Amino acid sequence: MDTPDLYWWRWGAGKPLPLDDYPQLQTMLKAWLDLPNGLEPPASIPLDDVTLNAPRIDDPVLRSLRRLLPEDAIRTDKLARAQHACGRSYRNLVCCQRGLVPNPPDVVVYPADEGQVAGVVAWAADREVAIIPFGGGTSLTNGIEPEPERHPTVTMDLSRLNHLVSLNTDSWTARIQAGARGPELEAALNARGFTLGHFPHSFECSTLGGWIATRSAGQAATGYGTIEALTQAVRMVSPTGILETKNIPAAATGPSLLHLALGSEGAYGVITEATMRVRPQPEAQEYHGVLFHRLTDGLNALRDLVQQGTPPTVVSLSDAADTAVLSMLSHEPQGWRWLADRGIEAYLSRRGYAPNGESCLLIVGYEGEATYVKNLVKQAVATCRTYDGFHLGQAAGESWKRDRFIQPYLRDTILAMGMMVDTLDTATTWSNAVNLYEVINAAINAAIPTCGGGSGHVMTRFGHATPGGISLTTTFWGRRMPGQEIEQWWEIKQAATEAILEAEGTLSHHQGIGRDRVPWLGEEIGPVGMAVLKALKRTLDPEGIMNPGVLVP
Amino acid sequence: MDTPDLYWWRWGAGKPLPLDDYPQLQTMLKAWLDLPNGLEPPASIPLDDVTLNAPRIDDPVLRSLRRLLPEDAIRTDKLARAQHACGRSYRNLVCCQRGLVPNPPDVVVYPADEGQVAGVVAWAADREVAIIPFGGGTSLTNGIEPEPERHPTVTMDLSRLNHLVSLNTDSWTARIQAGARGPELEAALNARGFTLGHFPHSFECSTLGGWIATRSAGQAATGYGTIEALTQAVRMVSPTGILETKNIPAAATGPSLLHLALGSEGAYGVITEATMRVRPQPEAQEYHGVLFHRLTDGLNALRDLVQQGTPPTVVSLSDAADTAVLSMLSHEPQGWRWLADRGIEAYLSRRGYAPNGESCLLIVGYEGEATYVKNLVKQAVATCRTYDGFHLGQAAGESWKRDRFIQPYLRDTILAMGMMVDTLDTATTWSNAVNLYEVINAAINAAIPTCGGGSGHVMTRFGHATPGGISLTTTFWGRRMPGQEIEQWWEIKQAATEAILEAEGTLSHHQGIGRDRVPWLGEEIGPVGMAVLKALKRTLDPEGIMNPGVLVP
Repeated sequence: MDTPDLYWWRWGAGKPLPLDDYPQLQTMLKAWLDLPNGLEPPASIPLDDVTLNAPRIDDPVLRSLRRLLPEDAIRTDKLARAQHACGRSYRNLVCCQRGLVPNPPDVVVYPADEGQVAGVVAWAADREVAIIPFGGGTSLTNGIEPEPERHPTVTMDLSRLNHLVSLNTDSWTARIQAGARGPELEAALNARGFTLGHFPHSFECSTLGGWIATRSAGQAATGYGTIEALTQAVRMVSPTGILETKNIPAAATGPSLLHLALGSEGAYGVITEATMRVRPQPEAQEYHGVLFHRLTDGLNALRDLVQQGTPPTVVSLSDAADTAVLSMLSHEPQGWRWLADRGIEAYLSRRGYAPNGESCLLIVGYEGEATYVKNLVKQAVATCRTYDGFHLGQAAGESWKRDRFIQPYLRDTILAMGMMVDTLDTATTWSNAVNLYEVINAAINAAIPTCGGGSGHVMTRFGHATPGGISLTTTFWGRRMPGQEIEQWWEIKQAATEAILEAEGTLSHHQGIGRDRVPWLGEEIGPVGMAVLKALKRTLDPEGIMNPGVLVP
Repeated sequence: MDTPDLYWWRWGAGKPLPLDDYPQLQTMLKAWLDLPNGLEPPASIPLDDVTLNAPRIDDPVLRSLRRLLPEDAIRTDKLARAQHACGRSYRNLVCCQRGLVPNPPDVVVYPADEGQVAGVVAWAADREVAIIPFGGGTSLTNGIEPEPERHPTVTMDLSRLNHLVSLNTDSWTARIQAGARGPELEAALNARGFTLGHFPHSFECSTLGGWIATRSAGQAATGYGTIEALTQAVRMVSPTGILETKNIPAAATGPSLLHLALGSEGAYGVITEATMRVRPQPEAQEYHGVLFHRLTDGLNALRDLVQQGTPPTVVSLSDAADTAVLSMLSHEPQGWRWLADRGIEAYLSRRGYAPNGESCLLIVGYEGEATYVKNLVKQAVATCRTYDGFHLGQAAGESWKRDRFIQPYLRDTILAMGMMVDTLDTATTWSNAVNLYEVINAAINAAIPTCGGGSGHVMTRFGHATPGGISLTTTFWGRRMPGQEIEQWWEIKQAATEAILEAEGTLSHHQGIGRDRVPWLGEEIGPVGMAVLKALKRTLDPEGIMNPGVLVP
C-alpha cells in the first residue's frame, strides 16, 4: 500500500544480484574498460544520513488536504519523500548512491479512487501546488522528479488504484485501474484465464498508468502490440475535468482523444483507469535461440519473420557486442545459461560462429495453441537457416524468458562496481536500420573516451519488429569519472541523441520524453507539433500544475 | 484533372444502373414500401436550368489568387462550382435532383504541389476566405459544403496531387499524395507489386486524403486494418504552418500528432501527403459465402473467426433483411448472382435455410499465399459449421467481390424511384452487438412510419470485426414525402442517432462527423474532449477559415 517494498536508492523491489556472483563479468569489464584494480562497490548510504529539503507545504495547507483523504493516505515522512523523489535513470541512481536527493516531493498522497484523485487535483489547482502522478517510479528520462524551486509538490502515488474492475470475456476487454503494477495486473487477469501481454523491462515495478502515459512498448510488442495497440479507452483526471474516451473497438469521430492521453506523461492529467484489449492466456509459449554469423543476416531473417506470415510474439536480436556479454554471463553461476557448456561453444566455433566475436543471437518466441506454435517455430527456424542461422534450441529461449526482467538489477550490480551505464531507445524503418545502428555506435564510441570513460563498451538489442521497421535499444558502459559523473554522462547522451536525430531515428521508442529529452522534442515533432502540445497543456492544465517541466515545460 | 468525370448530381463517375435492369427490385419495393404504382424516376435537371448564387469573390481578390496558381488551376465556372458544392448524402442528392445547389463555393482551385497549397491557405487566412479541402466529394455527413452567408469560399480540389512519390520495398511504405483516388493509388502500387488494402464503398471516387481526414474504414479493414492502422506519417498544411509527423514505425514521443491529423476533416488543415503502410499484393484471394439460420449464429461464428487464429481479410455479415435483398437482387439480370439459380434455393429451403426469411449471409475472404489461404478457408468453413453455417462456396464470395463498389450506384437507382434511402454507421463491443442492433432497428422501424415513410425496410450489414467488437452499417428505405424530404429524413436520422448513443454505440464508425453529426459530438467525446478539439482549432486555424462549420464549429 505505502510501497514499503520499493527501494529509494536502487531498482525495484526484488533481490539484488550480488557482485560476487559475477566474477567473470568483473574480470572482463576491468579488461574491456580499463578499470582500476581493487574496485569497491560504493557503500549504500542509510536514509538517516540523507538530508532532505524542508517541506514547502505548511500545516494549514496540509489540514485542508486532510479533508480530502484519510489519515493514512497522506505521508510527509522522510522515507515516503525519498522513495518518490526521482526515477531510476543513471543520473538518479548516481545521486542516490551519493546520498543526494535534491528535489523530493513535499507530500505523498495515496488516493484510493477517482473521486479522491479529482479532489486532490482540484485542491492543487486552486493553490498552484504541483501534482506528479507516480506509478512504479521507474522513469529513465527524469519524468517524475519535482521541479526545484517552482511549486510546492504533491506526488500522487496510485498504488491503491490497483484493481481489475471488470473483465469482458466476450469482447476481450478489461477495465483496470491505472496503479496496477505488472505482476498484480497479470495475476488478476491470469486468474480468469486472460493476459494483457505487455512486458516491458520494468514490468515488475511499473504500472498500467505509467505504460499508457509513456507510450510503453514491451518485450512481446511484436506479437501483442505496444501499449497504444492494447489500449481501447482511458479516463484521465485533468485540472479542467475528466477526459473519458468511449469504450469502442473503432470509431471515426474526429481526432483520437485516446492518443492524447497516450504519451501524456502526467503533464495533462492523472490517468485513473483504462479499458485494455486482453487475450486468453496462450496454451503454449516457445522461445528459441538462433545464432547468426553477422548482424545483417539476423536483421534480414527478422524482417522476413515479421513480413511473411504470422509475426513472432517476442523477438530480441543482439548485436555482436551484446551477444558477447550474454555469452559471458551464461557462464556466471547466476547468469544466463543459453550456452549450456563450453562444448557447444567449441562446436559452434568449428562451424564458424563466434559468440565472443561477430556472431549475433536472436531470441524468437511464439505463443498460442500448441500445434500451431510448433509449426510457426518450424517455419521460423527454416527462415533463419536461409540466412545461415544456427538453431540453438529452446534452452536459450527459456533462459532468456526466465531472466527477462533481470536487466535493471544487473545495471545496479554494474553501477555498484563504480561504472557508468545507460541505455537509449529509438526506432526506424528497415531500410535505415543498419545506418542508424552504425551512426549511434560511432557517436557513442567516440564520445565515451572523449568524456574520460575509457574505451567503453557499446551494445545494441533490436526488438519490437513490425513489417515497417524495428526498435534499437543501445546500452553503453564506461569508466565513471568520480565527481563529474553527471556531466560526463550527459555529454555522451547528448552526442548519442543528436546522432539518432541526424540519422532519422525517433527521439524515443519506449522510454518517453520526461525532462531529459525536452531539448530535442521540437526537432522531433516540429514547431507546429510543439504549438499543439502547448495548446493542449493550456487547455487541460491552465495553471500548469501537472508534472511541471515534463514534456511541455 | 478538372474532374470532368464526376457528376454534379449523382454518385461517382461510373455508369448508372438503369432502373429497368431491376424489375424485381421495383416490384418488391413497391410491395414492401407501399409505393404508388406508375412510379416515374425524377427527371435529372440540366445544369443550365440550375441557378447558382453569384460568386462572392471579386476580380481584385481573384487577381491576387492568380499570382499563386496557373491560369487553369482556378475555376469559377458553373460546372466546377456545382461539382464541388456538396457531398453525396441523401440530403445532397435530393437537393441536386430538384436542381437546388444552395451553397456552391465561389472558386475552385487545383493546386499541383504542397507549395501551392500552402500559398493558397496563407492567402485565404489573410483575407478570411474559407478553404474546403476536396478529395472525392463523397461525404455522407455534409463534410464539404460551404457555409451559407459566412465566408467567401475557395474549395481546394486536390486531384492534381495524385502521385505515388516513392515506394520503399524494404520497409513496405509508400509516400503518396493526398489527392490520389482509390483506383489510381492502387494501380500505381499494383504496378510495383504492392497494395494498400483500403477499399471503402466509395473507393472508386474517394481519395487518400479524404480517407485519412475522416478516419475511414474499408471492406478489408478486418485484415488490413482501418486507415488509422495503415497510416505511418502525414503532412498537413494548416494556417499556422505545416504539421509533419515523422516516418517512424513506432515512437514514444508524447501524444501522437498523427492521430490529430487522422479525423481532422479539413477543419485543421489540408492533408497533402502521407506515408502509408503497404504490403505485397497477395498471391491468392478467396472470398466465400456462408448462410446461417439466425443472425446470432453468424455473429458468434464471426467472433470466433477474428478471435481464434488468423482473422479474415474481409468479412460482411448481412442480417435477414439485407440477405433478403441480396437474394432478390441475385435474380436480377445485372445483380448479384451468389445464388446461382432457384434450384439451390429449393435445396436450402429443404435444409431449413430461408434467404428470404431468417437466414443471414456471411461473406468471408482471406488473402495471401495460395496454400495458406486454402487452409484458412478450410478452417473458417469448419468454424462456421459449428454454428450450422451452410457453405455456399466461392461463387457467392466472388459475386460479392465483383459488385463490392456497386452500392452507391444502386442507391442512385433507388433514389431515382423516388424513395428515401440512407445509411448509418456505428460500432460496438461483441457483448453489446445484438442489443445495439435491436435498438437501432426498433428506433428506425418506429420512426419511418411516424415520419410518413410507410412501413419501410431496415437492413444491417456487420463488418470490420476485431477481437473486441464489430461495426454495423444500417440502411433504411422508405416512401419519400415530396416537398418534405429533408425534414422527414432528418427526423429518422435523429431518432436513429439518439438510439445509437443511448445504446453505447459510437456516433460514427467510418463516415465521420461532418456537419450533420456535430450536434451529438459532445455526447460522444464529453466536454473536456470538446474543449480539446476547440483548442486545437484555435491553435491550427486561428482565423477559423478551414472548412468552417465542420467538426468544430
